[in-house]
Amino acid sequence: MAIRVGIVGASGYSGSVLAAILASHPEVEVVFATSDKRGGESVAEVLHPTGSALRGLRFVPNASALELAAQVEAVFLATSAEVSVELAPKILEATSARVIDLSGAFRLRDLGEYTKYYRFEHPRADLLPGAHYGIPELFGAPPAGARLVANPGCYATAALLGTAPLVAAGLVEPDHVLIDAKSGVTGAGRQAKEDYSFCEVAGDLRAYKVLAHQHTPEIALGLERYGKRGTVTFVPHLLPIRRGILTTSYLRPKPGVTREQLHACLRDTYANAPFVRVTEPGRVGIKGVAGTNLTYLGVESNGEVAVVLAAIDNLVKGAAGQAVQNLNLAFGLPETTGLESLVRFAP
Amino acid sequence: MAIRVGIVGASGYSGSVLAAILASHPEVEVVFATSDKRGGESVAEVLHPTGSALRGLRFVPNASALELAAQVEAVFLATSAEVSVELAPKILEATSARVIDLSGAFRLRDLGEYTKYYRFEHPRADLLPGAHYGIPELFGAPPAGARLVANPGCYATAALLGTAPLVAAGLVEPDHVLIDAKSGVTGAGRQAKEDYSFCEVAGDLRAYKVLAHQHTPEIALGLERYGKRGTVTFVPHLLPIRRGILTTSYLRPKPGVTREQLHACLRDTYANAPFVRVTEPGRVGIKGVAGTNLTYLGVESNGEVAVVLAAIDNLVKGAAGQAVQNLNLAFGLPETTGLESLVRFAP
Amino acid sequence: MAIRVGIVGASGYSGSVLAAILASHPEVEVVFATSDKRGGESVAEVLHPTGSALRGLRFVPNASALELAAQVEAVFLATSAEVSVELAPKILEATSARVIDLSGAFRLRDLGEYTKYYRFEHPRADLLPGAHYGIPELFGAPPAGARLVANPGCYATAALLGTAPLVAAGLVEPDHVLIDAKSGVTGAGRQAKEDYSFCEVAGDLRAYKVLAHQHTPEIALGLERYGKRGTVTFVPHLLPIRRGILTTSYLRPKPGVTREQLHACLRDTYANAPFVRVTEPGRVGIKGVAGTNLTYLGVESNGEVAVVLAAIDNLVKGAAGQAVQNLNLAFGLPETTGLESLVRFAP
Amino acid sequence: MAIRVGIVGASGYSGSVLAAILASHPEVEVVFATSDKRGGESVAEVLHPTGSALRGLRFVPNASALELAAQVEAVFLATSAEVSVELAPKILEATSARVIDLSGAFRLRDLGEYTKYYRFEHPRADLLPGAHYGIPELFGAPPAGARLVANPGCYATAALLGTAPLVAAGLVEPDHVLIDAKSGVTGAGRQAKEDYSFCEVAGDLRAYKVLAHQHTPEIALGLERYGKRGTVTFVPHLLPIRRGILTTSYLRPKPGVTREQLHACLRDTYANAPFVRVTEPGRVGIKGVAGTNLTYLGVESNGEVAVVLAAIDNLVKGAAGQAVQNLNLAFGLPETTGLESLVRFAP
Repeated sequence: MAIRVGIVGASGYSGSVLAAILASHPEVEVVFATSDKRGGESVAEVLHPTGSALRGLRFVPNASALELAAQVEAVFLATSAEVSVELAPKILEATSARVIDLSGAFRLRDLGEYTKYYRFEHPRADLLPGAHYGIPELFGAPPAGARLVANPGCYATAALLGTAPLVAAGLVEPDHVLIDAKSGVTGAGRQAKEDYSFCEVAGDLRAYKVLAHQHTPEIALGLERYGKRGTVTFVPHLLPIRRGILTTSYLRPKPGVTREQLHACLRDTYANAPFVRVTEPGRVGIKGVAGTNLTYLGVESNGEVAVVLAAIDNLVKGAAGQAVQNLNLAFGLPETTGLESLVRFAP
Repeated sequence: MAIRVGIVGASGYSGSVLAAILASHPEVEVVFATSDKRGGESVAEVLHPTGSALRGLRFVPNASALELAAQVEAVFLATSAEVSVELAPKILEATSARVIDLSGAFRLRDLGEYTKYYRFEHPRADLLPGAHYGIPELFGAPPAGARLVANPGCYATAALLGTAPLVAAGLVEPDHVLIDAKSGVTGAGRQAKEDYSFCEVAGDLRAYKVLAHQHTPEIALGLERYGKRGTVTFVPHLLPIRRGILTTSYLRPKPGVTREQLHACLRDTYANAPFVRVTEPGRVGIKGVAGTNLTYLGVESNGEVAVVLAAIDNLVKGAAGQAVQNLNLAFGLPETTGLESLVRFAP
Repeated sequence: MAIRVGIVGASGYSGSVLAAILASHPEVEVVFATSDKRGGESVAEVLHPTGSALRGLRFVPNASALELAAQVEAVFLATSAEVSVELAPKILEATSARVIDLSGAFRLRDLGEYTKYYRFEHPRADLLPGAHYGIPELFGAPPAGARLVANPGCYATAALLGTAPLVAAGLVEPDHVLIDAKSGVTGAGRQAKEDYSFCEVAGDLRAYKVLAHQHTPEIALGLERYGKRGTVTFVPHLLPIRRGILTTSYLRPKPGVTREQLHACLRDTYANAPFVRVTEPGRVGIKGVAGTNLTYLGVESNGEVAVVLAAIDNLVKGAAGQAVQNLNLAFGLPETTGLESLVRFAP
Repeated sequence: MAIRVGIVGASGYSGSVLAAILASHPEVEVVFATSDKRGGESVAEVLHPTGSALRGLRFVPNASALELAAQVEAVFLATSAEVSVELAPKILEATSARVIDLSGAFRLRDLGEYTKYYRFEHPRADLLPGAHYGIPELFGAPPAGARLVANPGCYATAALLGTAPLVAAGLVEPDHVLIDAKSGVTGAGRQAKEDYSFCEVAGDLRAYKVLAHQHTPEIALGLERYGKRGTVTFVPHLLPIRRGILTTSYLRPKPGVTREQLHACLRDTYANAPFVRVTEPGRVGIKGVAGTNLTYLGVESNGEVAVVLAAIDNLVKGAAGQAVQNLNLAFGLPETTGLESLVRFAP
């Protein structure tokens, strides 16, 4: 019996990659997909013309989401934090469906951080402690009782996979976690803004939200969730490519800690993780992961400073792929189900 | 029982996309993959780290191909025409395997064209008439007796899918088939040449082999094979993108022939073709097909000139995907097997 | 004594390249530059921070243009056709300034074509015959009495420079002029539209306005102005690069006309043209002209079909550079003044 | 009287940008340009077809450089460190010409660092102390007696302009200077390597020479030269663009030091520097400087960590433009001579 799911916001970048993955997922039936922009159009035609799973499905308005949620076992919210923070509680209360939220609405615990970084007053403090922060390689499967999964941010996923094990193992100083991150433009979502126009972005590189990005507290909390809170410095940059994130993290090794120990820590942490590869720093690149749910990690150190490189596809491991991984685990499937056949973009 | 196959030249661009597709193909077992460059390395690690099908497989030298061919039912040659023209006959003679050749070695019939366009004397005129020219939408499944499939060229595939039905139906003049083609750089293969360096290609566009490209006679012969030989003018251009081809074909409609008739001809020809979409000209773009085995077609006409747009991924429908489609048909499988789960690059 | 000029619409792509060129022009003083978007900002800071000529100049609102025009000898209109068609007559009537209009408002002669291609009713048929169509290499300097210069369209400039001499010389059939054109995204102007967003354009290629682009009648009229009207087929494509146009024109040589005759015709036509290079087809590329006022041309022929390649920078020779060239000629300066120091983008 | 100069290695990326700039320089005459690859070709045709200054000049073999150096007042070496380290001493000894060396051959002082980072034994320790390290904004004009100018590395230029004033002023801890740098591909020079092919680079981002790049000691020494040696961590990344560098430097402010103090320090240091703009961090981008000799700087701080952004064009301010700036200063010209007319690539 296939798992019946729905997608809210299926025509944005994350939502459409999610729909494309689910269309080929052998254990999932997509029951509905919402999009105000594409209302009435064929989902298959827009999102996955080579697959057969979505044949017959048409986009419905976002306003139908709550009613349709009663027909499914899981709802993916590929919506903004402002939308998710309102919609998720309603679904949780009105239906028995699990909610996998791709926005930041339930990733933090401190209401003040919502005010500061997301610029809204979070109305549901009661839901934050129970939301499962879903990086499976670090935090395992969503517990049976956790109906709300906060699917992690793209930057936070890459940064935490690379640094959390080293911080938690006490190999590096927790109060100096510095992350220089670079992301493709799909990270900004589907937008009609001059700043994201081809002519402005092509050939350019710039930093944005310097020391003020909303993933900063998410990374700090992720370190704490994994065992040891750290002081996080985070600067993101906009790359002139469509997809992919590379994070370059700078850590301070404790005295005597070698590059080999750091490498071994990462290698051992992810020994059984099907989507993580620990390799040489020079082999950690966006092209090697684009289009897949993979994470590539590499570490270098000179004793004073350790550098950890992490590469993911922001729309797959950083959003839709990890959401499917969480669905698989929540429903007792192998975590790779439906995610193995993704083929690298390269060449 | 899985079909046992081998890949010769599996680390080039076409070969590696082929290996990645076959790794997820539910009815195929890849028994060997050759690469002189990657000899001894793990195929899965290099080409398809998310899949499980290639686990344990290692690249072997090209020189092993003939001997290993005896163990399989089909051999893909992702090699140059010069290599294929020597190797294919040996495999056909020494084994019972089918050969699907991705090079141009067996696509033409006229030896003089080999001399002129490929710059070698073709040694096996005897094999040319029996080689099956494999565009399934136009020429169907390889016949039972045809052990040698000439997998079509990327430009020729796009150009023929767009124009051959119109020429054969007598809707346009056969003596004025003009094709302006644009291809991503992977079409040139994996190369260490300054001309294909990032700094030279990025931001540039230029034509090459103007009126002298080897796909010109292949397109002309393809029109003849489909029913009516035409006079073909062909100019390819190198695009600053990695993957994808757009062909813009200019035809002369016969008197009274309307845009609607042309559109209907294409639509009817491909009514049952799972990988072809006939749509509006403005929706025919590379991004919509990149990463998939799809072809998008559109036609416009003002009565004097008809313009046919065709878009494919040069490495999938233009090479590896079509080769798998031919394999499927040769072995009695649905032609979409293993090709449905390919997800568009976009976004 | 410097020529005093003003720029209306100086913060769009053409307008800003124009301002940057004029800032280094040794014989020009930019007296005003308008921009509603940038009102009050320093022109130098926004457009040309390395130069000294614009120091002190600030953008003023577009509404000031008419009044300020009285203080200058020439006004450049880097505005839409809808704006130019209203503003140019007012400037011509109220002042003694010359007007160099970069829009299409005065390039055609047939009012019906304005209705059809520009979608407005042209109110000033009286001005069209006297407007000088300014491709200096084909039509020379603006006559003394021509106060209104219609600066040609980017596509039309490239297409006409490559084909008009061959048509006029009777070397090719005038009723078969087919132009397949490819342009960078700046050709669409500065826009906040999803269609021109980085994520949509990068990696893509598509045709647009197939057989319906407004430069089609401009090219046809240009051929007539140069001596022999032709039947023009024109299909533009959007390239994933910022700047540059390549046109690939397909012509039918008259019987017996050789490639050498065609090449000689172009070479002789432009023997004294400082900005045109006639070379081999394989050397005609966008990278070689981007950032400059150059045109590269090349021709190939097999006797049946002749292919002419033309490359320009759409914002320089296709807009701002040619406008300055027209200014130079109108005021008796060498046409290269202020245009020689432009350095190619490449590498 | 024009300054007579020669260029050795004029067909590489830095050399060709240098030639293009010098072609428009009002006080310079280029007497010779060498290139083994382009021997005999016209310099103007290859490098600067719009200018008139190089008309008649043809590339000569590199082997002619020493002999021709006797005819000029300054020689630019756009050659590898291995070539420069041999050639510069010969020119200094055999002629009276100044030498401006764009390689790393004379930038360091510690022979061990040459062995470690450049992998050769430096034969001329005697010349290192007297070589002028030429970042004019930090180190002024080359002293009268300094005939050898070590033109700084591209990464080092950006990193030092952003950090040296803050370190020297004691506003930040000197022992924590961490630089995350991103460069376009021209930084690697003109190369025919698969790693720099379009298909490998496009869409990718990766770090290289992690903690092992030869500019690390150059930056550390630069800090010392400017007043206070620091401990430098440096990680470069290869961007999928042709030109431009962005460095993101992470510093530790001394207790109580504010963002405003850091900004004021940079602003005051460069108050009279014509090529440096100190602005908001979000306005520091590659597109704003590409094609020019400008440096854009911005700083942010939260009290614990300060982030300094610096953007330059690696081939202009990071190589050829700075070399011309050094020439100007060495010969008593305004430092902006010949560098003002460079027009931004953007749009």
